Amino acid sequence: MENFEFVSPTHFVFGRGAEEQVGAKLAERGAAKVLLHFGGQSAVKSGLVDRVKASLDAQGVQHVELGGVRPNPEITLVREGVALCKQHGIDWVLAVGGGSVIDSAKAIAVGAHYDGDVWDFFETKRQTDDVLPIAVVLTIPAAGSEASKNTVVSNDALQMKSGYPNNAQRPKLAFMNPELTFTLPPYQTAAGLTDMFCHLLERFFDDVGAVPVTDNLCLSLMRTVRAEAPRVLAEPDNYDARANVMWAGMLCHQGLAGVGRHEDWATHGLEHELSALYPEITHGAGLAVMFPAWMEHVRGENPGRFAFYGREVFGLAPTGDADADALSAIDETRAFFASLGMPTTLAELGVGEDDIEKMIPTLKANKGEPFGSFKKLSMDDAREIYRLAL
Amino acid sequence: MENFEFVSPTHFVFGRGAEEQVGAKLAERGAAKVLLHFGGQSAVKSGLVDRVKASLDAQGVQHVELGGVRPNPEITLVREGVALCKQHGIDWVLAVGGGSVIDSAKAIAVGAHYDGDVWDFFETKRQTDDVLPIAVVLTIPAAGSEASKNTVVSNDALQMKSGYPNNAQRPKLAFMNPELTFTLPPYQTAAGLTDMFCHLLERFFDDVGAVPVTDNLCLSLMRTVRAEAPRVLAEPDNYDARANVMWAGMLCHQGLAGVGRHEDWATHGLEHELSALYPEITHGAGLAVMFPAWMEHVRGENPGRFAFYGREVFGLAPTGDADADALSAIDETRAFFASLGMPTTLAELGVGEDDIEKMIPTLKANKGEPFGSFKKLSMDDAREIYRLAL
Repeated sequence: MENFEFVSPTHFVFGRGAEEQVGAKLAERGAAKVLLHFGGQSAVKSGLVDRVKASLDAQGVQHVELGGVRPNPEITLVREGVALCKQHGIDWVLAVGGGSVIDSAKAIAVGAHYDGDVWDFFETKRQTDDVLPIAVVLTIPAAGSEASKNTVVSNDALQMKSGYPNNAQRPKLAFMNPELTFTLPPYQTAAGLTDMFCHLLERFFDDVGAVPVTDNLCLSLMRTVRAEAPRVLAEPDNYDARANVMWAGMLCHQGLAGVGRHEDWATHGLEHELSALYPEITHGAGLAVMFPAWMEHVRGENPGRFAFYGREVFGLAPTGDADADALSAIDETRAFFASLGMPTTLAELGVGEDDIEKMIPTLKANKGEPFGSFKKLSMDDAREIYRLAL
Repeated sequence: MENFEFVSPTHFVFGRGAEEQVGAKLAERGAAKVLLHFGGQSAVKSGLVDRVKASLDAQGVQHVELGGVRPNPEITLVREGVALCKQHGIDWVLAVGGGSVIDSAKAIAVGAHYDGDVWDFFETKRQTDDVLPIAVVLTIPAAGSEASKNTVVSNDALQMKSGYPNNAQRPKLAFMNPELTFTLPPYQTAAGLTDMFCHLLERFFDDVGAVPVTDNLCLSLMRTVRAEAPRVLAEPDNYDARANVMWAGMLCHQGLAGVGRHEDWATHGLEHELSALYPEITHGAGLAVMFPAWMEHVRGENPGRFAFYGREVFGLAPTGDADADALSAIDETRAFFASLGMPTTLAELGVGEDDIEKMIPTLKANKGEPFGSFKKLSMDDAREIYRLAL
């Protein structure tokens, strides 16, 4: 087991009616003026934003609104949010939405006390502990941003999508009511399940040997997501299924499922280029296509690890041929994503062979350096993985 | 899944040399004068206390010492600690040791800003958020106190042992170096493993139905403890085995393994009376005796839950007879504890039938009310469980 540091300070309020406590919990923590950040229509139309505002009003917590976060949130709106924070003396950022809204809120919280351009943090030029505290009302279980240390933001002008990790931007409060997810469309539910599962795959496959305590926890979450996925798709208003998925989504990316390991994250890098080029691609759908292709390309580094995964998650009996076992595990992974209604090829996402060379120059802010951990990938490896995914 | 709130703000520094960072991490957080709290000889003799002091000195963090915490820590020393905090203007409490030292440190931190007697908190007369921040250098993986919200303290004058839960006393910093546990005697290692496993049992068996995400996580930890136990006993200086056990011990009691459930905790209540009466009884050894007896007595409430546990943790094939499956799972549990060298009867702990009536009056601060969740236990149930354990 590798040395590590880990902290997850988020206070979770989980269950029916959780969002009704927003005002009281923020007031308890001394919040005076909140930036209320949300996305498109659904949170407004459903009445959720109004309920949250009523909860703030009831406690005398002032609020300034900034809606309009799109999927794959963009730096322009983040800059607007930062300006609002400075103009109004905002002391908390409250995100109402899914991963995109929360990621946007994190970026705003990071930029609020910074004099330069907030994009600097996404170019790894800057680090800071001076981050506004963040609260979250989660509406889409997927990205795990409600507790994670990460934010990912797109910069359309640069055709880039870049991540920024910082423990200081882990939300301080997360309100998680599974009932709010009953009305999620099946495709979004499925993309969320895929995203969660891939957060575990990124942690499970790396160049560190077995770390039983972490691996067992990681595998238990994979089994949970796999078992709850068909249940939640068949019965969208099954409270317990939605609750299991919502809590699992947080655990998949909070960090515990990877402690003591190096983790990999190459596939997220490969996928980010897809949705930087075509912002309409849902992150989970991109991952569903890219992960099996990555697996096929890298499996030779440690086929036994794939066989172990296949046995523990899909119940595959070992055949004595580790590569055959690895291929079976990869087939099961692809079939699992397909069973959720996810695409299995780049063609289904409207991405063609000609697009590959457009993605290479910005890949991992391409400095020509290899990336990933399970196998160190060169830019030629990346090209080959994109080709396998066509 | 039941509604819940959960927070675990501990910042973990895990791995080789972790304790060398004590001074720097405390100084970063503004600690000026620390109460350095520890137990008997081993932490001093091994040089650990001196190394921690050197780390504090190097950062200019002042410290006042209070050693001498015994197993099943006692309120008298806690009161001394509280007095020292008041006298010296202590701003952090630093525990170097295992669960007893950490529990004593928590009680001191709770009492430091309270004008009355700190025992008031253990009689549930008082609640407070005004708790000194706590840091921990863990030397015994067992109680999980390095991250838990609980402390348990004995009061010899009252022949009582009482717990106090409070999120505000969760340690802010935990330094966990598995190498520090290489020299633990086998009996203490085994009692620690038993304690961890029982923290999971208390959460897994209650009156709530399946909570798959929590149950899978809980079962994954049971499997981890069961698999690492023989490894760590056979190879006491196997770093990876010790590391897996140390991290698992934290996870077993931090709370995640029980969220969304009511949990039970009747067996801990039954055991606390044993070690209140005979303070030389190691908590884990008491649990090893009491848990199978509790299981036998209550299994009829939901034998299917026991069968599920037996299948998932011990690989027992279902026979079609749920009660037979439950009994097999209980036998495996007893055999697991025995394989670690733990006692299986109260007789082995020097407790006889005559002692039973001595324990009933203080059991759960006996108000005649039923306790536990899987089955609500009357005082007659408690008598019967003690008898089954003889």
